[in-house]
This record gives sequence, structure tokens and C-alpha cells, in this order.
Amino acid sequence: MTTTDPAADAAADTAAPGLVPPDIVRCAYLDLVVTDLAASRKFYVDVLGLVVTEEDDQEIYLRPLEEFIHHNLVLRKGPVAAAAAFAFRVRTPSDVDRAEQWFAARGCRTERREHGFVKGIGDAVRVIDPLGFPYEFFFAVEHVERLAWRYDLYTPGALVRLDHFNQVTPDVPKGRAYLEELGFRVTEDIKDDQGITYAAWLRRKDTVHDTALTGGDGPRLHHIAFSTHEQHNIIAICDKLGALRMSDVIERGPGRHGVSNAFYLYVRDPDGHRVEIYTQDYYTGDPDNPVVTWDVHDNQRRDWWGNPVVPSWYTDASLVLDLDGNPQPVVQRTDASELAVTVGADGFSYTRRDDQEEGFKLGNSV
Amino acid sequence: MTTTDPAADAAADTAAPGLVPPDIVRCAYLDLVVTDLAASRKFYVDVLGLVVTEEDDQEIYLRPLEEFIHHNLVLRKGPVAAAAAFAFRVRTPSDVDRAEQWFAARGCRTERREHGFVKGIGDAVRVIDPLGFPYEFFFAVEHVERLAWRYDLYTPGALVRLDHFNQVTPDVPKGRAYLEELGFRVTEDIKDDQGITYAAWLRRKDTVHDTALTGGDGPRLHHIAFSTHEQHNIIAICDKLGALRMSDVIERGPGRHGVSNAFYLYVRDPDGHRVEIYTQDYYTGDPDNPVVTWDVHDNQRRDWWGNPVVPSWYTDASLVLDLDGNPQPVVQRTDASELAVTVGADGFSYTRRDDQEEGFKLGNSV
Amino acid sequence: MTTTDPAADAAADTAAPGLVPPDIVRCAYLDLVVTDLAASRKFYVDVLGLVVTEEDDQEIYLRPLEEFIHHNLVLRKGPVAAAAAFAFRVRTPSDVDRAEQWFAARGCRTERREHGFVKGIGDAVRVIDPLGFPYEFFFAVEHVERLAWRYDLYTPGALVRLDHFNQVTPDVPKGRAYLEELGFRVTEDIKDDQGITYAAWLRRKDTVHDTALTGGDGPRLHHIAFSTHEQHNIIAICDKLGALRMSDVIERGPGRHGVSNAFYLYVRDPDGHRVEIYTQDYYTGDPDNPVVTWDVHDNQRRDWWGNPVVPSWYTDASLVLDLDGNPQPVVQRTDASELAVTVGADGFSYTRRDDQEEGFKLGNSV
Amino acid sequence: MTTTDPAADAAADTAAPGLVPPDIVRCAYLDLVVTDLAASRKFYVDVLGLVVTEEDDQEIYLRPLEEFIHHNLVLRKGPVAAAAAFAFRVRTPSDVDRAEQWFAARGCRTERREHGFVKGIGDAVRVIDPLGFPYEFFFAVEHVERLAWRYDLYTPGALVRLDHFNQVTPDVPKGRAYLEELGFRVTEDIKDDQGITYAAWLRRKDTVHDTALTGGDGPRLHHIAFSTHEQHNIIAICDKLGALRMSDVIERGPGRHGVSNAFYLYVRDPDGHRVEIYTQDYYTGDPDNPVVTWDVHDNQRRDWWGNPVVPSWYTDASLVLDLDGNPQPVVQRTDASELAVTVGADGFSYTRRDDQEEGFKLGNSV
Repeated sequence: MTTTDPAADAAADTAAPGLVPPDIVRCAYLDLVVTDLAASRKFYVDVLGLVVTEEDDQEIYLRPLEEFIHHNLVLRKGPVAAAAAFAFRVRTPSDVDRAEQWFAARGCRTERREHGFVKGIGDAVRVIDPLGFPYEFFFAVEHVERLAWRYDLYTPGALVRLDHFNQVTPDVPKGRAYLEELGFRVTEDIKDDQGITYAAWLRRKDTVHDTALTGGDGPRLHHIAFSTHEQHNIIAICDKLGALRMSDVIERGPGRHGVSNAFYLYVRDPDGHRVEIYTQDYYTGDPDNPVVTWDVHDNQRRDWWGNPVVPSWYTDASLVLDLDGNPQPVVQRTDASELAVTVGADGFSYTRRDDQEEGFKLGNSV
Repeated sequence: MTTTDPAADAAADTAAPGLVPPDIVRCAYLDLVVTDLAASRKFYVDVLGLVVTEEDDQEIYLRPLEEFIHHNLVLRKGPVAAAAAFAFRVRTPSDVDRAEQWFAARGCRTERREHGFVKGIGDAVRVIDPLGFPYEFFFAVEHVERLAWRYDLYTPGALVRLDHFNQVTPDVPKGRAYLEELGFRVTEDIKDDQGITYAAWLRRKDTVHDTALTGGDGPRLHHIAFSTHEQHNIIAICDKLGALRMSDVIERGPGRHGVSNAFYLYVRDPDGHRVEIYTQDYYTGDPDNPVVTWDVHDNQRRDWWGNPVVPSWYTDASLVLDLDGNPQPVVQRTDASELAVTVGADGFSYTRRDDQEEGFKLGNSV
Repeated sequence: MTTTDPAADAAADTAAPGLVPPDIVRCAYLDLVVTDLAASRKFYVDVLGLVVTEEDDQEIYLRPLEEFIHHNLVLRKGPVAAAAAFAFRVRTPSDVDRAEQWFAARGCRTERREHGFVKGIGDAVRVIDPLGFPYEFFFAVEHVERLAWRYDLYTPGALVRLDHFNQVTPDVPKGRAYLEELGFRVTEDIKDDQGITYAAWLRRKDTVHDTALTGGDGPRLHHIAFSTHEQHNIIAICDKLGALRMSDVIERGPGRHGVSNAFYLYVRDPDGHRVEIYTQDYYTGDPDNPVVTWDVHDNQRRDWWGNPVVPSWYTDASLVLDLDGNPQPVVQRTDASELAVTVGADGFSYTRRDDQEEGFKLGNSV
Repeated sequence: MTTTDPAADAAADTAAPGLVPPDIVRCAYLDLVVTDLAASRKFYVDVLGLVVTEEDDQEIYLRPLEEFIHHNLVLRKGPVAAAAAFAFRVRTPSDVDRAEQWFAARGCRTERREHGFVKGIGDAVRVIDPLGFPYEFFFAVEHVERLAWRYDLYTPGALVRLDHFNQVTPDVPKGRAYLEELGFRVTEDIKDDQGITYAAWLRRKDTVHDTALTGGDGPRLHHIAFSTHEQHNIIAICDKLGALRMSDVIERGPGRHGVSNAFYLYVRDPDGHRVEIYTQDYYTGDPDNPVVTWDVHDNQRRDWWGNPVVPSWYTDASLVLDLDGNPQPVVQRTDASELAVTVGADGFSYTRRDDQEEGFKLGNSV
């Protein structure tokens, strides 16, 4: 890993010089289509312990314990499991106008709804962004009780915040440039000596990311992440899944990320949507926060302890929808895949940069 | 405790209508005068485990493990134990100009130094603010290694970030109004039914505070706070202090704050300067983050478990210096004191608002 | 604190040379009379999370998550809040005979019941011991599910084991000698330079104690202790009590004991019966396990962090019953009291043995 | 998993009816031959934080923080990496005689040394047991400071106790019968429907085991295990190994065992000797402690979260020495291997007993 200081200021806005991008506060909620609402409710409410703000037989609105806006996750019954929208909160009502204009100027399809697209949210605009993802921007939102002090409601694996989204896209440098123009800042990335970028992490709030770009066939949703207060909370989720004989929903982890330095776990919901449980990354709010770059062959980049990344984590992801609710076509990644270059015949990973093959832990483990 | 939505926007700038306040990023470092540099080094480095960036026989520059700027604490040898400056980082170089102009327009004494007042910091301005505190604003700073991944350096009580300052001032509403004009936002406060404000918490970064105002004789420094990742790290500091037969430096805690919902500990350094160890408050970055108001008689406001606040925590604080290095005169608080109204003959505290005296835990404990 | 090697073997049995004491395995359950069964159920089941094995309108049988015998606590409805029996499990059925004979030989009243005194327990004998406490010894017991793997039932403050009893008696050396003859081994004690013993900890299983003797007016029950896996579980109990506005049931702690090195919390039930939550003492199973002796004036003996012991902790305790269900008369302690010699005009406590009064933390805190 | 009550009493002693086995207190130390003493010292002292009691250029004596006997691990420089002795402490000096007679009566080679085989240990006997393992029994031992209260010496991954040994032997039922005659009690085992036993856990002290038998080519040492207080201590060891770029010494975990319910990690030392870090199993001290039997095909038996067991964990183990210091010949296991029956073409594992192949998590992960 190496660190570099970021560009002094935002990338120039090439597409629409005149326009000011919206002031994005944070990732705010995911609008997620599930095929069996009862099964999903059991997973997100009974097992993971998210709190129901309101629900009916078509939709369930969920939040973790420290949230004060109406929801961070909408489960919506539908025919095809997919992500309907990645919603971001903006700083003022007029930032919704700025978002609409900024994307329109790029020739992106936009749809504005004064009363919002879901319950609890007011004036909002949805767009299909240059990468094919459905993004939403809103300011107006209903406030609900912040349950931070309600320890009588906490479970051993209590989820307290929405932390980030993670998106799969074929061309990471293109996506990164667009999101930097939109006002995101890169905190970390994974590259190789040939100049290929495999992934990038971008933030608005003071954490490592509000969203990340993972190189692969896309546009697809890689995962949504909720955070806990401590590491033992994540262990408690694993223990509970074992007690419920649901351990096979654990896809990867728990472990320590190299990227972000956070403690993590990945689970899969009844539709295969991936959820990360995440805790303890670092403060990134300074304008010159150093960018951390990882070598794709560094076996500690994705798991600091060198434990193998399961192939499904690289290959599986969820479809995303267009503004009419139809799945977006998936475009293949043409650059080298992280899986291929790190595992198996064509790839290699090292624990110590200068080691020989012996240093290659995966070989010992599989 | 009750929650209310904040004023839609910043308080109007009454003193200098034309001026834009500096864009403050976060509290950045405290310049602290100590009378015995060796004794202070033992406390902050050997006991608390802060990392030395550089030092000589007059000054020691310290940072916690996740920091990437040169320092968060300067220990400076001097004749009188006191706080020489509360330093805040601003977003751009020109924000240093804005700070200088903004305070000058209020008739505050300002001093600008192109090469900074301490090592590692560039162009900076120091001011004596309307409350009599020495504030510094800077953008330019040397970067050092962020040790977040250096687990070989971690101790059981590892401090990872600077979290906040806490200042003692006689007139909290006056101080609060000034800091809101400067761009801070209130997250929580303590009041009574007579409209007296006993304390207020104000933030720039996405946490509960960058600084707080505690009602009392001032201007004085109440404490500086560093954060850990988990609660057990704070317990480990207590255990180590016991092993070193230094348990009498533990002034209060550990405990859970009502205000901020954080887990805390207060210790006193060899000069009596107060240091808080703090972890796990909540995200406050939204523009309409709800303000939490606590009743001064609520016995869970300062310790969620109702454990007594020791009198010294209310009465003791550190002097602050003017720009010539002389102690600022201390002005007495004329409003009721939180200690007086909550403990003893004139005061009361309750666990349940409608309880009789039986509910008064302090009475059972002392 | 000083450590010494124990007597090579058990104290000689002065009272009944011929008799072999019963082979006691561990403290097993407390038979506790409460005046409001519903209120007690709310406290032990809803708040503390003990599991109900069975119950009716007169009795509730409770166990923590790792227990496999029928119960560790019986809540029995009665007119006077008191402890009806301290029950110990013995290694074989014939050890019940040995217990009966051993106490009878001392002129103690004994009562044998083939079908036990409570549900779930078989052949048992109850005695009034030489200190006036109602002790029970049994081998036969119903097995129930050990819920150790049932993480779906865990709460953040999950109690996993019964750890120990603590008894108040006026003459600690007398009680200690009797319990050593009965086969208990002392692990730690608190003394002063005048040779007064203030407390002693005695064990059968491999922990610091199965019961302890605290010097005071007795016979009385000081507390029953359940253990958690980790320190954060105890913090979670405090946080939950705060959320339920029950923080005034927290009498002392959380903190780290000097004696036993365990992390602790003391709460009081609706009748004032004291419950300790306890975790992480050390292994004591070797025959020559060193005895740790603490100076009564060492301010870290009862709280390693030097936090004050509240007076009620020294003065309050629960009555115990005779075999007819009548409260045992309470005999006053004539030796100096730990409270008197450590706090206030007649007493003193130190952080460092050779310090002057300045080292006396209690004075700073109260 | 199913639980059954154990045989009411010890297995009859078939080999030597007249003889009483020694009263074994606990596993006490491992005498371990390493080929590079400096490299091993770096691993056990600098990385894992074991405390050096004494050392020279041939031997290093180590203990964890709560130990009061001279050592729990001897690192001895030698030509072939192997285990020279598995040492158990007995209750009295005469139990050393009993051990010598008991093994001699079985035709086992024994060697008695009045002044012990290693420093710090007195009168001891070493034997080659019926399974080919070098066992030692001793009572006399030097006491050293129990560092439990020395929190100034604790590291984030502090090891506090020796927990157990684990031995590889071809015929688990034979080994189990012999150890039961020697006075060990089985707490858990792994079997299949064909009546094959794959592993068994046996205890003397009040934990799940002092040693375990793992079916495989033997006699070999599978691992030695040290315990920590909390789960985060084990995570801290992983994080430190990552920081030291030694993550490839992590062979398996961290994870939750099904068997024992403990949280675990396996690392390999410079010679490939396996060390487990272990915490939080349950109390087993009652004479009728229920035996837990796991189905070999239950994918949660060895990792409660269903994470795969790496093949090296099944296949690799350390040689053991005879009493002349020569490696014992390794006998092949003839029963089915746990690896073969659970993974790959001939095997299967399930998360839910009645699931189809889909339930087989390993297939999804590899």
C-alpha cells in the first residue's frame, strides 16, 4: 500500500462547465426489489434486527438504531430481484434542482417527483447516471425517533448506521472521473503495475466511502453496508446465523479489510442481494486526506489477514433497474478481472512483495 | 431528554453582516503548557500511548494512531500550566484570511504568522475570541504517516483520534450564539425549566462535537478528548493505571454519557489538565440533525447509569493564555451552577421525572 | 497485595476427627424469597435475561445460558425477603450422607428430604451451619438444555453461568476455619496490620470463589453473582437499565475488582437483594494456588481503579432463614468495620502505600 | 449435535485392576523442540507476547500472564522439530508414583527423574503411553509471579492461560478408552452413522478439554492452545500479524467452534508447529456433565459459521519424540478421514441435516 496526496481541488467539470453539482451529504437509502417480502422481512428484521418504520404488503421501510430519517432501506415486492435506486441526501432543497440540471446536461434521463418516489421522502429526482445506475437525490424527509439511547431494543449484533453502497461497473476509471466531477472524493483504490484500476472508494461524509466502484460486469449492485459499534457485534451476527442453521448465508468473513481498515462480514439475503456488516474505518474529512493505493497482488488488500476471497464475491451481484422498472442490460468488463489476476494459473498474490511462491497463502489454503 | 429540529439555517451574523466566516473542518490540535515536560511525556506517551511526531527539550508533538497531520497535541514547557491555543483546521488557505477578517471585524485581537506558531503548521492566525479563548485557524500542515494499519504499535488502550475540546465559560448562551455565527452547529444542550443553559455541544465534523461549552468560571479549558475504537480500550486504560498505581489520576468514569451517548473516562495529567477518553457517539452530519435537550435535573444526562459526577469535575479547569502568553483573567459564572442545582440541599436529580426523592440516586450513594 | 503459598493440605477437622466432609463440586443454586413475584420476574427475566426452566404463581426456576442443571436460582413468593438456602452440588449421592453426618457431628440442625426441597432436585439435606446460614447439599438433579449454542436467545448482556455466593458474617476467621474444614480453599483475603480479617474468598471449582465471607452483621446474604462472557456484556446491562430508566438499581460499578481481578457490576433487585454481574477472574484449580492478601487500606483492593465503594454496599444485606422459614437473628460484628477503617475520620485509603494523604482518592472524590 | 449423559463413573481399569491412576490436575506444559531458537523466540515472545521466565542459548521457558507455575511451554533447540513431552500436573507428590506404576503395569516404558527433566520442575516421570506419546507427570514446581494484575504488561492480544493440547492418533476409540481409564472424562466427540469416531475431547480441569484426540496418522502433536480473555484479543493478534506482513502464518480462523463453543484462531510457528488461540468455552466440572456428539457431516461442527476447514489443518501435524529424543514412527489411520468424508467427491457437509446438496456451503465457496 502507498499513500499520495489528492489533487488540491475537485476535477474540472468537462461535460457541463457552467454547472455546479449538488452538495451531496451522504448515501441515504437503497430502494431494493425482493421477490418474497415475508422471507426478506425475516432476514432483515428478525435476523439482522433492522427496525421497521412502516410497512404494508408491498413495501417495508427499515432503519438501523441511530438513524433519524425515515429509512435507509426499502424492501419492495417485485418480480425481479434488483436495486431500484441508490438514494443520496443533499444539503438544501435547491440541491435537488442542481442534481436534475447537472445530469440533464449530461444527457442523462431524469425524473422529478415533488412528493417523492417512496414514503417518507419529499421532492426528489431520479436519474440514470452515465454508468447506468439509478441514482436519487432528495433533501426533504420525515424525521423519526433516533433509537441510539434505546438500549432496551439493542440485540447483540445491533446495526446502528447505514455506511455505504458498493457498485459493480466495467470501467472503473470512467466511473471514478464522473463521480469526482459530481463531488465525490477518492479515499482508496486498487491498481496494478500495468495501470489497470480494479476498484475505487469514494466518499462525501467523513468516512472511507459513501459508495465504491468494483470492476466487473455492470451496472450491478455489489452490496449495501450497515455498521455496528464494535467487532463483537459482527461476531454475534455470525453466531446467531449458526444457531438458526443459516450459516450458509455467510459468504465471506468475518475479517479485517486492508482497504478501509474496517472489520467486516458479508451475508446474502434470500434473493442473493449482498449485505456487508462493517465497523471502524477512519476519519477522511480533511480536504487533503491521503489517498491509499493497494497493489492488486497484495494478498492483504481485501483481507488484512490474507484469508481467501471466495469467487462468488467477485462474480455475483444484483441487477439494477431503469426508471421504468426494467432491468438494465449488463455490460461485460473488458479489463483484467481481479479474480483472474490474483488467483489460479494466471494470477498470484503475495504476503510480502518480494517473496517467492511460498509467500502465496491461497496456495497453502486451497 | 427531548429532541427538536434545528433552525433551518445558520444564525444571522449580527456583528459583521458582510463577512463570511471561515469554513472550519474540525478541531485539530491543542497547544498546552505544562510545567514538567518529562512528567507530561510519561503520562501522554508512556501511559496513554500517544505517538511522538517530534520533540525537543521545550516541546513534544503528539498524535493518535489514525491521525495524518503533524500533531493533535503540543506539550510546551512553561511556568504556568495553561492552554495556549485551541487550533481548528479550515478547508482552504483563503479561509485563514476569512478567519482573520471575521474576528478583526468583531474587534478581537488577531495575530497572523505566515510560518505558523508551532512546528508542522504553516500560515495561521491566532485570535482572542469574544469569550476570551485563544483560537487558531490554519490550513497548511505537514503530513505524517497515518498509523491506522500499524497494529504492531497498538496498545490495549490505543487512542486513535482527537475527538473534541471542552471549554468553560460563564455565559453559555452568549458563547453558543457566537459559535453558531462562526459556523458551528449545536447538537445537544442541558437546560432547566427557568431557561438557564448549563452546557452546549457544537460540531463542525460529523460527530456530536468539535467543542463544547460548559457553564462555569472562565475562560478555562475543561478538557481535551481523544477517542478509542472500542469500549474495552477505555477499560484497558483504567486497568493499566491501576497496575501503575496511578488510579488516582482517574477523576470520573468510566461510564456512558447521556449527552452524546458516548462511552467515556476522565483522567487528570500531572498539571491537572483534564483528558477525556471517548468512544462511539453518533453521526450528526445532516443539516437538520435533531438537537437533543436534557433537563439539568435528569440524573442520566451526564452519566446514563446515574453514577455521581464528582465535584472536582465541575469546579476544576485549566487557565488559558492570551496572545502574549499571560493567563487570561477568570470571570465568575453568575447563573446557577449545575453542581448546585443537582446535588445537595439546593439541588435534586431524578431517575424518573415524576419520582419522589426516593428516585434520587445520589442520595443513596453518598 | 502479597501472595503466599497455602497450607500444604486441608485444615485438620477439629470438631469431628473421624468424619470425611462431602466432596463439594460447586455452588449450585440460591433459594430466594421475594415479596412480589411479578416484580422479581420482570427484573430477573425481562431485564437480566435469565431463562425460566419452569414457574407457577408461587415459584420461578431460573438459569443462565450455559447451565445444564434445572436451575441456579429459585424465586419463591413469601412474606419476608430473605435467602432460604445456599445450595451446593456434591460429587456423588453418598456425599449427601457425608454432609448430613458432618454437620450433625457439629451439633448443627439438619433436615433430609429424599425428594428434595424444590423442583428439579432429588435427595438433599439442608442444615443450619455453624455461622447460622441455611446450606443445602444435593447430587440428584434434572438435566435441561444447555443453551450455550442458542445464540438466537442471547441478549447484549447475556448471563452465562452462576459464579458464586457472598455471605456476611461477624467473625470471618471463624467462618474461614469452618469452611476450610468443610473442604473449601481460600484464594484471597483482606486484612490489616492489626491482624483483623475483613473478608475471605473460598472456592471448590476452579475459580476464585464459590462463596466469600464479608465481615459484618450476620448471618446475611451479601449477593449472588452471575457471569458474562465479556466486559461489554456488563456495560450493555448498565445501558439497558438506563434506557428503562432503572439506573438507580445500579448500586456500584461497573469496575475492576482488585480481589479476583474480575470486571464487576452490582445491582439491587426489587426487594433489595444484591446481584453481582461478574466476568474474567483466573484459574485457581492447583492444590498450591497462591493466596493473595490485600491490605484493607489499599484503595485498589475492591476497585482496581480506586473508585469509591458506596456505603450501602457495606451496610445492606439480605436476611437468611432457618429451616422453619423464620429469619435468623442478626449478630453484630464486633471487629472494626471495613467502611470505618477505610473512609472518613477514623479511616484512610491509599493508592501508593507510602503516599501521604494526597494519595487518598476518596477524599478527592467526595 | 446431540447430548447424552456420561457413564455414571470411570471406565473400569482393564489393564491393571489393582492400580489407582494418578489424580491429574490439568495439562501443564509442552516441551517443544524447535530448529531455530531465535526465530521461535521472535514468534512466541515478540509476536504472541508470551512471557520469558528464564532462557539460555538452548532453551526458553515461557508462560502466559495468569500462570503462576514456572512455565507452560519450553522451546528447546534441536535438530528435528517435534514435541518432546506433554506434561500434566498431578495433585500430590505420591501421584507421581501412581503414574509411574500405572504406566509400568501397562508395559509402557517409564523414566523417573527426582530433579525433573527441565528447569523449574522437580520430581517427575516421563512415559511413552499406549498411543506412543511422551507424557510427563509432576507435582513439584517453582512458583513465579502471576502477572494477572500487571496490565502494564498486557498487549492487545494478551495470552492469559494454557488451555489444552491436541494429539493426532489413528485409533480414536482406543485412545479414548485408555484416557478414560487414566481418569479423563469425555466432553464432546465427532462421529458418523457408521459408528466411526473422528475426534474426542477429554478434560480434567473444569473446561472442555485438557487434551483432545484427532483421528489421523500418529502419534503426532496437532496443536497447543493458549487462551485470551476476550474475542477482540484474538482479532488483535490477526491484525498484528497483518501489520508485520506475517498473515500467512494464519492457517485457519478466526472463527467460532461448534465443538466447545469457543472462539478460535490457528497459527503456525516457524517450524510449522500449530498454535491455537482460544477463548470462552463452558464449565464442565460436574460429574454428569452432558457429552455433546457431533455428526461428522454437520458443517457447523468445527466452524459454527460454516467456514471451510483448510486441508492442511487435517493433514499437517508435528512429530513426537521417544524418551531417547528420537522421532516416534508415524502409523497411518485406517478408518475414514474426516477430510475425505466431508469434502470433495466422496464426502459431503450440510448446514441443515435434511437439505439437499445446495445446503453444502463448501461447494459454494471453493
